[in-house]
Amino acid sequence: MEFEEKTLKSEKIFDGVLLHLVREEVLLPNGKTSVREMIRHPGAVAMIPFTSDGKMVMVRQFRKPLDRTVVEIPAGKLETSDTEPLLAAIRELEEETDYRAEKWSELTVFYPTPAYLDERITIYLAEGLTKVENSLPMDEDEFIEILELTFEEAKALQESGEICDSKTIYAMLYWEMRLLRERIEG
Amino acid sequence: MEFEEKTLKSEKIFDGVLLHLVREEVLLPNGKTSVREMIRHPGAVAMIPFTSDGKMVMVRQFRKPLDRTVVEIPAGKLETSDTEPLLAAIRELEEETDYRAEKWSELTVFYPTPAYLDERITIYLAEGLTKVENSLPMDEDEFIEILELTFEEAKALQESGEICDSKTIYAMLYWEMRLLRERIEG
Repeated sequence: MEFEEKTLKSEKIFDGVLLHLVREEVLLPNGKTSVREMIRHPGAVAMIPFTSDGKMVMVRQFRKPLDRTVVEIPAGKLETSDTEPLLAAIRELEEETDYRAEKWSELTVFYPTPAYLDERITIYLAEGLTKVENSLPMDEDEFIEILELTFEEAKALQESGEICDSKTIYAMLYWEMRLLRERIEG
Repeated sequence: MEFEEKTLKSEKIFDGVLLHLVREEVLLPNGKTSVREMIRHPGAVAMIPFTSDGKMVMVRQFRKPLDRTVVEIPAGKLETSDTEPLLAAIRELEEETDYRAEKWSELTVFYPTPAYLDERITIYLAEGLTKVENSLPMDEDEFIEILELTFEEAKALQESGEICDSKTIYAMLYWEMRLLRERIEG
């Protein structure tokens, strides 16, 4: 089966502070043409940080598109699409939570919505946390509350809808499986 | 802690076929102003369809933002934000895969990336599948290959990167946990 959509014409619609919108005319496999509207994004990192007593570190912040606060695992966008994700993750974790992690492992990579967006999120497991004195300062105009949650506390926030974004819903399922594995292995 | 960002000015930047871009000037909790660029989207549904022999039904399609094919669980966007998600899911499953499901259950709801997008995806488990003769026709200009995959086959597609979007990465983790649970319960 032939799938490829060849670009016939590409047009920049909007070049914003964060978002870059492109409209392309494409040639479909059946010879017809269609329009694809796409957002360009440099990519992001997110971390699942576990404290030594098995809590997950999350952050509460206001998300304007939903017009309410959302509780999420720490994350940040890459400066450019060439930024090394792990270095960005190490810096973001310290900026947002004042924690440094001893042990980092890449858990997964996903595209939130590849139908019209090229954002790619790399998710790391961050363990062996220690609090940093004089940690890296947060970006100006970021208002963040740091939370350290037990699984039950986080589950309650998921049920109330405050935990609701793709990377944190993934983190919750990951956590549930980790607890299940620990139970099996004794 | 005060989080709310009040909208001072809202401006439509782009009104496309699929995407609607809005730029807002907001008043931050510290009295300063900032700009929020946001995409409006009517929302979507996705389904995790299991066949009677334990395979998951997925679809392969070209995703222009990544310029390659991606294997995903079946999904579709809502006509409007008022569309009843379950009815949309039932229709989309039949259109994309020629299957009808006897048993539907809502698994989760998530926002792919609430920092700048209001899209909300409801994910359903669809079981008790039967093939439909003369099924609903697919949207014109959709080119889709239907796959029925064992866990090992899907895992290989995840490792090669063809399974890579948030809802399908979630589905894979859900599947892994389901298999783990089945093993425990004998």
